[in-house]
Amino acid sequence: MSDTPKDLENLIDLMSRLPGLGPRSARRAVLHMIKKRSLLMTPLADTLAQVATTVRECLTCGNVGTTDVCEICESPKRANGELCVVEDVSDLWAMERAGIFKGRYHVLGGTLSALDAVGPEELRIPKLVRRVQEEEITEVILALNATMDGQTTAHYIADLLSDVRITSLAQGVPIGGELDYLDDGTISAALKARKEL
Amino acid sequence: MSDTPKDLENLIDLMSRLPGLGPRSARRAVLHMIKKRSLLMTPLADTLAQVATTVRECLTCGNVGTTDVCEICESPKRANGELCVVEDVSDLWAMERAGIFKGRYHVLGGTLSALDAVGPEELRIPKLVRRVQEEEITEVILALNATMDGQTTAHYIADLLSDVRITSLAQGVPIGGELDYLDDGTISAALKARKEL
Repeated sequence: MSDTPKDLENLIDLMSRLPGLGPRSARRAVLHMIKKRSLLMTPLADTLAQVATTVRECLTCGNVGTTDVCEICESPKRANGELCVVEDVSDLWAMERAGIFKGRYHVLGGTLSALDAVGPEELRIPKLVRRVQEEEITEVILALNATMDGQTTAHYIADLLSDVRITSLAQGVPIGGELDYLDDGTISAALKARKEL
Repeated sequence: MSDTPKDLENLIDLMSRLPGLGPRSARRAVLHMIKKRSLLMTPLADTLAQVATTVRECLTCGNVGTTDVCEICESPKRANGELCVVEDVSDLWAMERAGIFKGRYHVLGGTLSALDAVGPEELRIPKLVRRVQEEEITEVILALNATMDGQTTAHYIADLLSDVRITSLAQGVPIGGELDYLDDGTISAALKARKEL
């Protein structure tokens, strides 16, 4: 595209680096924004610049926010003694969307992984140990992904924190899930954890 | 997500309006940008703001650029008498990527559509007629999409421009295409347009 202006080419290149977008969808997105300049492109540029200068990690839990300590960590209402450990901020957001958990969070920033040489020091695990000692935590809920790395990390943390109640999310058939479409592991887990009706 | 900062929520909302992104992929993209703030988020904000203030439609052909007349229309090298009519800027870009066409373009801005009440006046068709009269056009190449609306528009334009040579892109089997995966229409068109080897 030798005759495309440099800025436009840059923009398409940057957009194509976003997860879920490739070169083709980046071009489509850019053309769409150009058509909706005042409704979409200008507000997006402003908001991006705003977020890029203000966003930071919460010093306590690792959530993203615009203050040194995030709103959840700051709210006294959320200090109910429950601490939910998640892998990533996206998992924290998913928990918040569900709207059922009223405690605080701790974002690890990934999982232990021997292959990728990720040890406890690379994650927010030492900080978690300190928080459990210093804050009045009565229960640590491990809401890690049901993957091999997630479960390894969960067991590692459970071994580390011996003085506090440790729970993990239940495994089973998802709401609306059809058995025919579920993998064998989920069905086995759901059968083992079956409950009286 | 009551506890997500307002700016972040706005950003996710704006991102999710891009074609190809939904709420989930918008959240993923935003988290990815936050992780790559200096490498991706800040440059993207700057480039977006830059493009949002400078981008405009070429007054002649409808291509997007940063000048009143785009680089292709300005380049004397491209004045070879061939005018390629496309539906949208993305099609112009696709032609340019192929790198084989050395003439100029005319972007219609869509196709005629009775259903959506798009008539010739809504498109850049009157301007096309003027260009063919005023510029030294020897051939109009209709590179419209092989859809019903695209072909209707092609026939309408062909009827309108009677004094100039009018061609359209060949239809047939795409390069690397496997017959088994092609629709019947393409196979019929390729068979009808078969050539001596």
